[in-house]
Amino acid sequence: MDQEFDLFVIGSGPGGQKAAIQAAKLGRRVGLAERRRALGGVCVNTGTIPSKTIREAVIYLTGLSLRGMYGEGYRLKDEIRIEDLAERTRHVVERERGVIRDQLVRNHVTLVDGTARFIDSRTLAIDDHSGTERRITAQSIVIASGSEPAHPEGIAFDGNTVLDSDDIVLRLTRIPKTLVVVGAGVIGIEFSSMFAALGTKVTVVDGRPEMLEFCDGEIVEALRYHLRDMGVTFRFGEVVTEVVQHDGGTLTTLGSGKQVAAEAVFYSAGRRGATADLDLEKAGLQTDERGRIPVGPTYRTAVDHIWAVGDVIGFPSLASTSAEQGRLASADACGIESHTSHELPFGIFSIPEVGFVGKTERQLTEAAVPYEVGISHYRELARGQILSETHGMVKLLVSPSERTILGVHALGANATEVVHIGQAVMGLGGTIDFLVESVFNYPTLAEAYKVAALDAMNKLRAVSTFA
Amino acid sequence: MDQEFDLFVIGSGPGGQKAAIQAAKLGRRVGLAERRRALGGVCVNTGTIPSKTIREAVIYLTGLSLRGMYGEGYRLKDEIRIEDLAERTRHVVERERGVIRDQLVRNHVTLVDGTARFIDSRTLAIDDHSGTERRITAQSIVIASGSEPAHPEGIAFDGNTVLDSDDIVLRLTRIPKTLVVVGAGVIGIEFSSMFAALGTKVTVVDGRPEMLEFCDGEIVEALRYHLRDMGVTFRFGEVVTEVVQHDGGTLTTLGSGKQVAAEAVFYSAGRRGATADLDLEKAGLQTDERGRIPVGPTYRTAVDHIWAVGDVIGFPSLASTSAEQGRLASADACGIESHTSHELPFGIFSIPEVGFVGKTERQLTEAAVPYEVGISHYRELARGQILSETHGMVKLLVSPSERTILGVHALGANATEVVHIGQAVMGLGGTIDFLVESVFNYPTLAEAYKVAALDAMNKLRAVSTFA
Repeated sequence: MDQEFDLFVIGSGPGGQKAAIQAAKLGRRVGLAERRRALGGVCVNTGTIPSKTIREAVIYLTGLSLRGMYGEGYRLKDEIRIEDLAERTRHVVERERGVIRDQLVRNHVTLVDGTARFIDSRTLAIDDHSGTERRITAQSIVIASGSEPAHPEGIAFDGNTVLDSDDIVLRLTRIPKTLVVVGAGVIGIEFSSMFAALGTKVTVVDGRPEMLEFCDGEIVEALRYHLRDMGVTFRFGEVVTEVVQHDGGTLTTLGSGKQVAAEAVFYSAGRRGATADLDLEKAGLQTDERGRIPVGPTYRTAVDHIWAVGDVIGFPSLASTSAEQGRLASADACGIESHTSHELPFGIFSIPEVGFVGKTERQLTEAAVPYEVGISHYRELARGQILSETHGMVKLLVSPSERTILGVHALGANATEVVHIGQAVMGLGGTIDFLVESVFNYPTLAEAYKVAALDAMNKLRAVSTFA
Repeated sequence: MDQEFDLFVIGSGPGGQKAAIQAAKLGRRVGLAERRRALGGVCVNTGTIPSKTIREAVIYLTGLSLRGMYGEGYRLKDEIRIEDLAERTRHVVERERGVIRDQLVRNHVTLVDGTARFIDSRTLAIDDHSGTERRITAQSIVIASGSEPAHPEGIAFDGNTVLDSDDIVLRLTRIPKTLVVVGAGVIGIEFSSMFAALGTKVTVVDGRPEMLEFCDGEIVEALRYHLRDMGVTFRFGEVVTEVVQHDGGTLTTLGSGKQVAAEAVFYSAGRRGATADLDLEKAGLQTDERGRIPVGPTYRTAVDHIWAVGDVIGFPSLASTSAEQGRLASADACGIESHTSHELPFGIFSIPEVGFVGKTERQLTEAAVPYEVGISHYRELARGQILSETHGMVKLLVSPSERTILGVHALGANATEVVHIGQAVMGLGGTIDFLVESVFNYPTLAEAYKVAALDAMNKLRAVSTFA
């Protein structure tokens, strides 16, 4: 007999979890199917959580944060092995899976192991890989099936010398001395910086003329400078035409004829929506050429009672935004109006870290919105000195007329955390005057906001004397 | 000939610096006298900056943050020597002195080396310790002369086995295996936790029945639990009656007859206003029994054109508040109205760290202000898992009627930073609804705000169903 639900969710990543929990909290009968053995999706199992855990271990074990103090040669462990990184990761991943299972179970979400496919727009068959297939029906369905690495044609991925972003977390057996990273997106840059910190000679190849073009240009420039300083070579505006594997490693040929020999090649050239198994056409749905499902403003698909959230709908494909999409889609499915305070932060866990919220200088200039810039360098703060954070900074983009904050861009230690202070001020309509009049704990990085606000204020005053 | 100033500042700690710079930015002729060889006051030279730098090194070198992951026995360096800590401190202290000098010079503040004393209420004599004495006159004077460790009678401080808080930073030559800490105030607790982290067996003695009574009781309880877990013994409600020094160390006798043998005794039993050299009576000023100068709301003393700020006026004696007092006093002296956004944060750099802003449960209950509590434990956050921050937490005190935040209390990694998000929300009148609707970067500790706000919201909902 078919099992009936008010709302059924496909996938247990951040988007799926929050969709299920939101509906359950509103008293709905909720089910969730997960095709992997473990809960949590790419985020917990091969993506965000493992990579951020590895990153933390890399920063710690390389003594990177102390090199400013003890000199460039400082290194905590002479030989960092992949096991040093993997041990810690296993532990965190298992704990996170447990946390997610607890949350779902506590909220009475029915968990169904297996791969879901549509029979019709309200019916799913779920294959548990042991030959049994269950059928479920639901009034509303949320697709949060995630994404998988895109494999360009003609490249022979072997999980050993030619790797995608799943392999690099799960299968890497040693830290390569040399590495080619194809794709200078968030994942490519995060891993490039981690391997560079570990001493790997990294070459980044990207067909675009720029990297992370949605970030502030000055921050990206500083990040690129520091990556180069750690030995990263950039090949922008170049495409990979061939990767040849051999005993000693790989030889990558670029469109311009350049060749790069490296122990391994890491492809982070985009991800595809994980929709191949879903039989979406049975539900009356179609995907774009990268397997992604088009959605409207509340993440509703072309079919009225089906929503899609997270990586499966494309950019920004961040755990935080996916979770929020899940919450909003589910609220919509339950007939509840729900809001996001409109400023969404971005975090890039490169070394050094990037955090931002609001507009970039480029966006404001294109929209002909005037702004003033206030900058604080961490090296001028006592906390920056204590942390040897000589290159970190916070940059505020300020409205000259309203004195409100239009954008916050941070680079350096805890940038992904630091940005939230500015986010709260922006979301609540605070001004630079509020920041100048605020007292922050001493010594903390938060003081950067006061210094940057003062900087902006002094510049605004200089301009206003001519008004 | 006397040198004339619009405003003259005595002392170059955080209060003095900001007083001088504020007046200089307003176009006044400003001078500043510093009796030590180095700028920065206690904060930079023997207090905040050295102790926070040592703390950072202790956390790092002991591998403390990784013990949750790699087990209790984990330790980065087997033998941590005092030089490992001192090296880093010297570097940071020198940089900070340089930063302060640059700021003062850039703002055209005239620096005068030497000890100032009043001739009359507008005239100071400044002795540069080489026999030369300068005279200066000023329209307004800001006293920011700081504090010095109080030395109880009958205790023979020798800078070696019986130490005050200056000694412990400057003169300690080895890490003691056993230590008695007299005084469970902020400084006593900060150092107790640092030495405990280094493996020292610490006994804390305080005549009061409680420690850090201005903090949230639950946070203090958790902190005390963790200190005990690191081997700290507490003797509350006990006074020290005798400390005997001998070859092997010290023997401390308490009023109840208990005796504690330890390699060293650290007295952190309060500080006195550093006013002995000032000849305050010549200016018509008096101090209280601890050498502190009474002030009014804008930090004006009993004499109309003299202000006093920072440690010399007593509680809270934090660098951040002293700096703000300096700014406000100076603005007042220049006839400018100035404000502080009214929420002042507190930071205690113990291990684990404490940060808070706004009211405590005790204060609200005494004032008969109802509140609901929302809690997030770091162990439930992905970032908490990655950092092995299993004991950290954020606690929000929420107004049931307004849904605004009345207090934020944080314990654990970066608590002194994390509290600023809540401070911004409080200062701008934001509600828990704002926090629930906010998206935070994942994985970050900032997510604790969303979780704690949801917790408070659920509790408020449960109560409201009976309304």
